[in-house]
Order: sequence, then C-alpha cells, then structure tokens
Amino acid sequence: MRNLTLMTDLYQLTMLNGYLKNGIDKNIVVFDMFFRKNPCHNGYTIIVGIEQVIDYIENINFNEEDLLYLKNLNLFDDKFIDYLRNFKFSGTIYCVEEGSIMFPHEPVLRVKAPLAEAQLIETTLLNLINFQSLIATKASRICTAARGDAVFEFGLRRAQGPDAGIYGAKAAIIGGCKGTSNVYAGKKFGVPVIGTHAHSWVQKFETELDAFRAYAETYPDNALLLVDTYNVLTSGVPNAITVFKELREKGHKPHGIRIDSGDIAYLSKEARKMLDAEGFEDAIIIASSDLDEEIIDNLKLQDAAVNAWAVGTNLITSKDCPALGGVYKLSAIQKNNELIPKIKISENPEKITNPGYKKVIRIYDKASNKAEADLIMLNDEKIDTNKPLTIFHPVHTWKKKTLVDYSIREMLVPLYEDGNLVYKRRNIQEICEYTQKELDSLWPEYKRLKRPQPYKVDLSKKLWDLKNKMMGDCDLSCTKDE
Amino acid sequence: MRNLTLMTDLYQLTMLNGYLKNGIDKNIVVFDMFFRKNPCHNGYTIIVGIEQVIDYIENINFNEEDLLYLKNLNLFDDKFIDYLRNFKFSGTIYCVEEGSIMFPHEPVLRVKAPLAEAQLIETTLLNLINFQSLIATKASRICTAARGDAVFEFGLRRAQGPDAGIYGAKAAIIGGCKGTSNVYAGKKFGVPVIGTHAHSWVQKFETELDAFRAYAETYPDNALLLVDTYNVLTSGVPNAITVFKELREKGHKPHGIRIDSGDIAYLSKEARKMLDAEGFEDAIIIASSDLDEEIIDNLKLQDAAVNAWAVGTNLITSKDCPALGGVYKLSAIQKNNELIPKIKISENPEKITNPGYKKVIRIYDKASNKAEADLIMLNDEKIDTNKPLTIFHPVHTWKKKTLVDYSIREMLVPLYEDGNLVYKRRNIQEICEYTQKELDSLWPEYKRLKRPQPYKVDLSKKLWDLKNKMMGDCDLSCTKDE
Repeated sequence: MRNLTLMTDLYQLTMLNGYLKNGIDKNIVVFDMFFRKNPCHNGYTIIVGIEQVIDYIENINFNEEDLLYLKNLNLFDDKFIDYLRNFKFSGTIYCVEEGSIMFPHEPVLRVKAPLAEAQLIETTLLNLINFQSLIATKASRICTAARGDAVFEFGLRRAQGPDAGIYGAKAAIIGGCKGTSNVYAGKKFGVPVIGTHAHSWVQKFETELDAFRAYAETYPDNALLLVDTYNVLTSGVPNAITVFKELREKGHKPHGIRIDSGDIAYLSKEARKMLDAEGFEDAIIIASSDLDEEIIDNLKLQDAAVNAWAVGTNLITSKDCPALGGVYKLSAIQKNNELIPKIKISENPEKITNPGYKKVIRIYDKASNKAEADLIMLNDEKIDTNKPLTIFHPVHTWKKKTLVDYSIREMLVPLYEDGNLVYKRRNIQEICEYTQKELDSLWPEYKRLKRPQPYKVDLSKKLWDLKNKMMGDCDLSCTKDE
Repeated sequence: MRNLTLMTDLYQLTMLNGYLKNGIDKNIVVFDMFFRKNPCHNGYTIIVGIEQVIDYIENINFNEEDLLYLKNLNLFDDKFIDYLRNFKFSGTIYCVEEGSIMFPHEPVLRVKAPLAEAQLIETTLLNLINFQSLIATKASRICTAARGDAVFEFGLRRAQGPDAGIYGAKAAIIGGCKGTSNVYAGKKFGVPVIGTHAHSWVQKFETELDAFRAYAETYPDNALLLVDTYNVLTSGVPNAITVFKELREKGHKPHGIRIDSGDIAYLSKEARKMLDAEGFEDAIIIASSDLDEEIIDNLKLQDAAVNAWAVGTNLITSKDCPALGGVYKLSAIQKNNELIPKIKISENPEKITNPGYKKVIRIYDKASNKAEADLIMLNDEKIDTNKPLTIFHPVHTWKKKTLVDYSIREMLVPLYEDGNLVYKRRNIQEICEYTQKELDSLWPEYKRLKRPQPYKVDLSKKLWDLKNKMMGDCDLSCTKDE
C-alpha cells in the first residue's frame, strides 16, 4: 500500500510545528468537509473516495527518510520531528457511506480530533474525495443522458496521471458506468473490463475483412468489430456482416460493432438496418468518439441506434468542470470538555459556514419512499418522527413545508472511533447497488441534466438560531472573505 | 517503485493475444507519439513525463497475481499468459529530452519494437506524457502572465488524485513555477516547497495579532503572514506591520504577507504603501485566490503590487483545457529488414499522419540563436549546413523560406536501445535550466498568450513527396476518419 503521508501542503506542517510550540496541538477540534456547489451544474453529487481515505489514514507513517527530508528544510525543530515520528491518527471521523448522494453545504465528512491530527490530513482527504466524487457525478450525468444504455469508461490515456485513470475508473463505475477499459482498475477493484480492438489492428492486416476474420477467430463469442477504419457503410459493416455470417454458421453468436467517427446518428441507424436485414438483431452497436452527456443526449434525440456508449476524455477529466471545490472548515473547538461552535463569516453569504458539531438527516416520504429534504442539525438534536416536522428555507424563511408521514436517516456514519477503523468496506457491486438506491430515492426533478430543481437542504431551528446569533455577535471586523 | 504493468486498455491485451495467435507479434513496427494541437491555444508545448515513462518501462512485469486475474477473464489462452509472464520490453525508443519544447504533429517519442511490445505500452505512455506536458505548458502560460514574478503551485487539494498532485507539481516546476506546496513532490523530486499558514491558524488564536505573533515567533526569518482572515487593510496589514516591527527589533527580516481574497489589485497597492511607509520595502506580497493566466495578466495591467502568485485549481487541473490529446500512431512496418512507411488517411487533413521512420530537426539562426523552424524528415536524410536550406509550408507550398547561416539540432535522442535504457536522467534543476533555454530560443511571437504566431513545422521535400505519393495511391476505400 502506498504511503501518502507527505502528500500534504507544507503549511499544514508549518502550522503543526507552531501548534506544538504553542502547546495547542492536542486541543480537540471539529472540522467539516463540504462543498458549495454540485459539479457541472448537476442537481446532486455522488460522494466517492472514502475507501481511499481509509487506505491513506491506515498508512500514515513518517519514515526516517521523510523525517530527514523535513529536518533538512530547516523549518522544524527536533521536538516536532520526534512528534511526527510517533504520529498516529487518534481521532473520530464520521462520514457518508461510499457512493452516497449529497448536496451543497452538507458535511460529507466530519473530523473530531486533536488539532494537529485534524490539520495534517486535510489536504489528502480533500484531494481524494474531491476527485473521485467529481468523476462519479460526471459519470452519473453521462448515464442519465444515455437513458439506460450501457456507458463504458475509456479515458485512461487522457486521464490526469495513473491515479486519475485508476480511481477515476472506479468512480465512473460507481457513477453508473458498466465497465472500463482500464485493466489495472479491473483487477484492483473487481470492476468489469471491456475492450475490443483498435484501428491499428485493422491496419496490420492486408484487408479489413482479413482483420475482422482474424479477430473473430480469436474471440468467436466476443467479436465486437470496429467498423470505421475505412468506411463504415461501404466497407466496415458489410465486412462485419460477412464475418458474422461465418460465425453464425459455426454456431457462435456475433457480439456487435463499434463506430468511432462520423455522424453517429446516421451511421448507427443505417448500420442497424443492415445488421437487422441479415438477421443480426441481437448484435449491439457501440459508439465512441469524443462523447459527453450533451452529445449523447443530442444523438438520442435523433434516435441514434446505439446500444452502448464508450466515453473517454470528457468523462475521465470531467472536461467542462474538472474540479470539485470541496473544502474543510473548522466548526468547533473543545474547551473544558464542551464543543464551542465556530463560524467563519464572509461578505459572500454562500461562504458563511455552519457552526457547531453537526449531523445531516435525510427525510423520506413514507408513501413514495422518496427523499423530501435534508436537515443539517446539531449532533445532539433529536426528531420525533411521530410528530409532524416543519422545515423552512434557511434564507427565505417564509418558505415552509410540514411533513407528516416520514422517516429519517442519519447520513453520517462512523468511519473512525478514537483512531480505530470501524467502517465496513463494501465490494464494488454493493457500492453500485447502494448508489443506485440513492438515485432511485430522488425525484426526477433533481436529476435533470439542465437546470435541475435545487434539492432542499435546510437547517434545524436550533442550528439556524445559533448561526444567526453568531453572525449577529460578529462585528464588522469579523467579516472574512476567503 | 510502483508496477503499472496492468495500467493499459483491455484492447491492447486482446489485440496482443490476437497478434500472438496470428504469429505477427514479433513483427517490427514503428509508432510515433505526437499531438495535433497545443493545449490552451498556446504557441508551444513543453514535453514532460519522459522520466516517469522510464520508471514505468523499467518496472513492466506481469506477476502471478496479474496473470491469474487475466486468466480468469476467460479471454486469453495459456500460451498468451506464458508470453506475458516473460514479457520484457526489447525495443528502441527515441524521444525528446524531458522539458523540451515541441509543436503539433512532430513526433515527440518514437517506438521501434516488436508489434506486441509497442502496442502494450501505448496507453501508459500517453497517460504519463499527456498529463505532465499539459501541466508544464499551463504553468508556462501562467508564468508568462506573471512577467518574471515568482509563481507557486498550490493546487494539491483539487488535483485529480495523488499522482496528479505529485507529478503535476513537478511538471509545474519544469514549466517555470518556483515552488510547490506539495511536500511529497518536494521530497520525491527535490523541488522547492513553500507554505505559510491558513486562515484556520488565525482562527485558533484569540486575536489576529496573537496569531501573527505566534507564527513569527515560530518562524522569525520566514514569517509570511496571511492578512485577509478579517480585513486586509484595517486589521491584517496593520497587525502584520506591528509584528514585523517586533521582528526587526530582534534583528530579523520580515518575509511578507499573503492576500487570498478581495480586489487583489487595490488591496496589494494599498498594502504596499502601508508596508513601505514603515520601512518594509523588502517585504513581499503574495497573492492567491482562484488565479489563472488571464486574471494575473489583468491584475498586472492594473499594476497590482504583487511580487509572487500562488495558483491552485486552475493550474493543477489546467481547468480550461484539462486534457492534451496526444496520440500514438503506426508509421512503419518492417518487412524483409526494410521499414515500409504506413499512413493513416482521414477526411480531416489535420488527422492524416506523416508516414515513415522519421526524425525532427530544429533549425537555429546563428546570428540570433533563435529557433527558426522545425523540419520533420525521414530518419536517413541529412542536411549539409554549409549550403542554404529552403523550407516550405506543407500545405501552402508557395510559402518558402531560405536559410543561410543556420545550425541544426536533432530533437529525438535515444531513450532505449534494444530494451536497454540509455537516457541520462537529469535532476530537476538541470531540467528547469534546459526548459528555460528552450524558451529563450523562441521568438516572443510564439510565446504570446493570445493568438500566438504558429511556429513553422515543415516537412522535408523527401517526406512531403512520400506523403503525397501515398495519399495519391490511396483510393477512396483508404479514407479513414478516426
């Protein structure tokens, strides 16, 4: 397992050293990780990365080589180096389950730990969860556009480095993709791998027909032929049909064709007719070629006869929105065994944090089993589900809603308790099923690609009062504009 | 060292298996890696990633666990699994030196190897070089906008996974950044690390002044204070000045301040006046806050009094252009000990490949030492630099230029010879110096951020003739539209 201990911003270490010098490194603090906007104007975000967070925390260990490097920076004294030598995460982390659907401003992960420990892990936590959640969400958008057709992740060669390709493939599967071309990810996570042949395969043979025959002989039950090396309709599809007939005579069932260029709508419809006319109604048509959710949506609008979509660069880099801006903010400091709420004020109301030690409750309508709203509450608050619950918009407080027949669910579950891992990892199939259930619990209006309805994320009355009191107590000098 | 052997697209393996079955796996072929467009509309691309390519190739090894995984996919027979068990790269690779400046359509890496070997490494080669070249080029653009001010890479928390943060930091340094916040990259590559403190440091103390004092006591000679936690001009800068005076009395030289929000142009100019008025002319002002080359350029236009720029998300993800589309195309196949050129035709002229076993020559004007043009030539061609050289535009052939007092340089150097690594790795300082020399050799018109003049990349007469003959020989069925 890779040791990513040094994968942190230098200022985390310079601050840690300072905390140690000032004797406040062991103060217990609470940090929330949350994001302020869903990526790509989506209506929700699928949180992925928790499992790699576990790998990271389990392997935190400054080895002697690391310590020597840090010592030679001439920033730290020996006491600090010794502290790092014995560093072990001892805190408590609650977070959403891998593959959960979450919304802006909700804590998706909550760390309660000694100041130094909570601070050290910030950068890597953000790095891991920001990226994987981004790709899972992007994949989900692309799958939405594909309306139930299979989507495959084919982007490894354009991913932002090996980890982006590997963990991006996993995130894409959680986001709804049915397979990846990435063999490393296939082995590491048990996700389905898919692949056929490239144009270069066809170029290696004298003719396209030779190339198809050779491929079909090698994979008689898995012959997916790339038909656009020369010309899709005059060469590729006719040659594929010739080979498919030969396969059929030998008792094999041809798999299908892939089109990687040209007018996918027109070519797929014509190819479909040609295949059907020869009795290959079951042969699938896969499309690739710089696809994304908008193009797929448009091709579907034109009734493209495509059964599955292979998406590369635009998925694996989330090209039009390549970063999720998750942040990690202080929400409480323990004093005399009590957690004192902390708030960060900003001139930009979007950037004012929610203070205190909090939890997130999802409220489901019992009749429809759909999620109605989320409530961010203080951790010690309770809801009596036998009573009606009135929630209100945190800004436009006159917008109210009273729920009667509802159930509730706590979104944050224990990951670490006092430094001990208590989260039960799931295999990839279980995570995918879980995410699918999460998606099923959302009304369609939150899943639209364009201008989705904003899902309700309200504050409990108690938290709202606390926040407003703290904002009121804060004079102008408290305004902070990070 | 990480083993990335399985980091490939499944179709590479299904094709390999097919080549083996068809007895053509040992045929010697030539593949070129090149890109068709500079990223972000830049005028050049800095090629980075060669060193990680070496790490990758040196560690190619299918272990038993990998082989068992592949066997269980039920796609491959035992002969192929045995072949992979003994897989070793035995080919010859020429490529540009790490940190070289290259242009569209030029081979930046050329593989001559048995078909199976050349094909297996494609995906990872592209992944590594595409990403690192992208970030180096983006960093170079940002440094151009900063007009000589230091630029720091601060994006780890938004990078697309650990590798993107780590190798992205290295690429950013090669692209011109003077430091990174990423400690892991600092240790791994020996790049300078930089960091001060976060807003959370200030929040941990009763007052901003307490926080600054505590930081300055910890780092008296390195006190870079973040002044925007409350209010830059009424609180942050005055408090910083108070602490700087205390440091000065103790014989220390204050380092400077960082501004992370608000109107950087106005705030920096006011802060500069306040610092200067107290005799802190040497204290630097660092700006951060969602910067990129356009914003920096605009802030410079308004004479922002900023000495250094810390850039995060927009640099480490190359946000507005997050992928470099490098490709890997067959250019020749060996038959009877002769390399037969191969071409890929497309309806899109941009996508027609240059056939044959090629090299790239850069032509320098002796008087100015500036690069005048590049020539893509067949490998066995020679230039007599004592004679004038007439080059011509590969499409608008009437555009000609005759060079008289010039020198030439071969851009592709040996990386592997018959499977043996022959490239001399350089340390990061040497690479940075090399890249700086590369940049110095370019006329300013190619380095403009907006609408740079296209640098001349011509074909030798012999290659041009070959290409045109092959395009002419190719009937319509040869048209290929990848």
